[in-house]
Amino acid sequence: MMGGDYAPLEAIKGVQSYLSGIAAPVQLLLIGDKELLEKLCIEHHVPAEQCSIVHSEQVIGMHEHPTKALKEKQKSSIAIGFQLLASGKIDAFISAGNTGAMLVGALFSIKALEGVIRPAISSIIPKTDGGSGLLLDVGLNSDCKPEQLNQFAIMGSVYANLVLGITNPKVGLINVGEEEGKGNLLAQSTYPLLKENKRINFIGNIEGRDVLLNKADVLICDGFTGNIILKLAESLYEISQEKKIENAYFERFNFENYGGTPVLGVAKPVIIGHGISGAKAFGNMIELARVMIEKDVMKKMKEVLS
Amino acid sequence: MMGGDYAPLEAIKGVQSYLSGIAAPVQLLLIGDKELLEKLCIEHHVPAEQCSIVHSEQVIGMHEHPTKALKEKQKSSIAIGFQLLASGKIDAFISAGNTGAMLVGALFSIKALEGVIRPAISSIIPKTDGGSGLLLDVGLNSDCKPEQLNQFAIMGSVYANLVLGITNPKVGLINVGEEEGKGNLLAQSTYPLLKENKRINFIGNIEGRDVLLNKADVLICDGFTGNIILKLAESLYEISQEKKIENAYFERFNFENYGGTPVLGVAKPVIIGHGISGAKAFGNMIELARVMIEKDVMKKMKEVLS
Repeated sequence: MMGGDYAPLEAIKGVQSYLSGIAAPVQLLLIGDKELLEKLCIEHHVPAEQCSIVHSEQVIGMHEHPTKALKEKQKSSIAIGFQLLASGKIDAFISAGNTGAMLVGALFSIKALEGVIRPAISSIIPKTDGGSGLLLDVGLNSDCKPEQLNQFAIMGSVYANLVLGITNPKVGLINVGEEEGKGNLLAQSTYPLLKENKRINFIGNIEGRDVLLNKADVLICDGFTGNIILKLAESLYEISQEKKIENAYFERFNFENYGGTPVLGVAKPVIIGHGISGAKAFGNMIELARVMIEKDVMKKMKEVLS
Repeated sequence: MMGGDYAPLEAIKGVQSYLSGIAAPVQLLLIGDKELLEKLCIEHHVPAEQCSIVHSEQVIGMHEHPTKALKEKQKSSIAIGFQLLASGKIDAFISAGNTGAMLVGALFSIKALEGVIRPAISSIIPKTDGGSGLLLDVGLNSDCKPEQLNQFAIMGSVYANLVLGITNPKVGLINVGEEEGKGNLLAQSTYPLLKENKRINFIGNIEGRDVLLNKADVLICDGFTGNIILKLAESLYEISQEKKIENAYFERFNFENYGGTPVLGVAKPVIIGHGISGAKAFGNMIELARVMIEKDVMKKMKEVLS
């Protein structure tokens, strides 16, 4: 509850709005300053029977050094969240706090799925035809090996299938040309691995001009390229607002629609929100966590990976 | 004249329209099927005193293998163009033909500027505030070394200054975060080189969300990343057309406004057009070549590089 630029107010509003709109029996543990949260829960009519508060006396600031902060602030809301997740007291952990600390926590507090070289983070890419694609990695691994990209393809396919509801998702490799053999050394070496991978539905290379079109459902790249694409795409929403372009498509680039990004390849759902998350984003993150638990996405991912 | 999907008609129309609108004394050599071009020049009222036709009896197809085609088709319009350029009979060479053949020709028929590790190609990026940025490399070098990116920064700065008219252009490194130390191995190693480079005005890292904003004038990255950014940006024009968004900003992503991309780092101006170039693009490419000759961009680049 203490993470994000508008903490804890927007988080509380998100919890209230989510619980008032859903029939599913979710149980939320709100981690943060107990006194403050109790006061806000009453003020905002948060249903007490579905929420319990876990006190945390420290806060990791948005600009603190992730590893250092997480180590030194064991009583921060982020550290406590990972402790609860690791010990099985909660089934998923969500925060819009210090992104680095969330990543470090996900990598070191929670185990990676067996065989996973490195987890990845993904993002929804709105397609021009109304559908959604999944782009990964969007920043956890700036430099990648071909084997990692091959695993991202599997993890992304399972997620696209179970969470986005896409049957036999088409996997595309982000590249500079359509033909096999194109690209940098990484893309050149990754292509044959994806082509031979029977666990995915590989359709070939995807150029920059096809990223927003309905060519592939799962877009694979290293975290450097993915992060540039994601942030460029996100900027389209702000630009369309600034230019007063009212268009439903560009509206879909508003990250609040999606809430947060799940860390894929770890044993339990960890969802990382933008620092500027508002109530709507928090609500969407809770729903995403619920779906990931319900569909047992991590178990399925483990099965397909092994 | 034989290059591009609508050759030679759109090229002829571009020449006519360009010559009818400009006072500058340019002299054009039109390379292609002489009989056909003579007929078209008369039909389209191309001023004969400013054009002479050089006959070429072969054409390199858009999908032919670049190196093989250029070697075997010595009488193609592209091969002849490079022969004329190398021998000093023309001062600049423009084509919308086989991109690979144009790149191979630029790399091997014309010398690289002294000290240049590898030439690069650049593209104009329309900024939201109405200005223009220069992005490079956009595809010639998929894998780069830090020293190459450092040279791109110099070449891009000279071009932005002389051709785009930007005084002391701000150079940014495309990266996944703002702070020094962020990024993949390439970006991490490039940052200190740019920082120490007294010949450029380095302002730091540029994230994906800032690519379209007025933060930097010259955006530096490897050709893989640059190509993805460029093609994604270009797709915004088509998407805005499809979604019937009439907005002057997205109109600027129409590549026809810019014509073609110059090869930077070679001794003479070579301008490569899109295969789908129309008359407007051809006209803009001729004007770009004229400006590059007038400002002696290559000479200045050589001076700053040495």
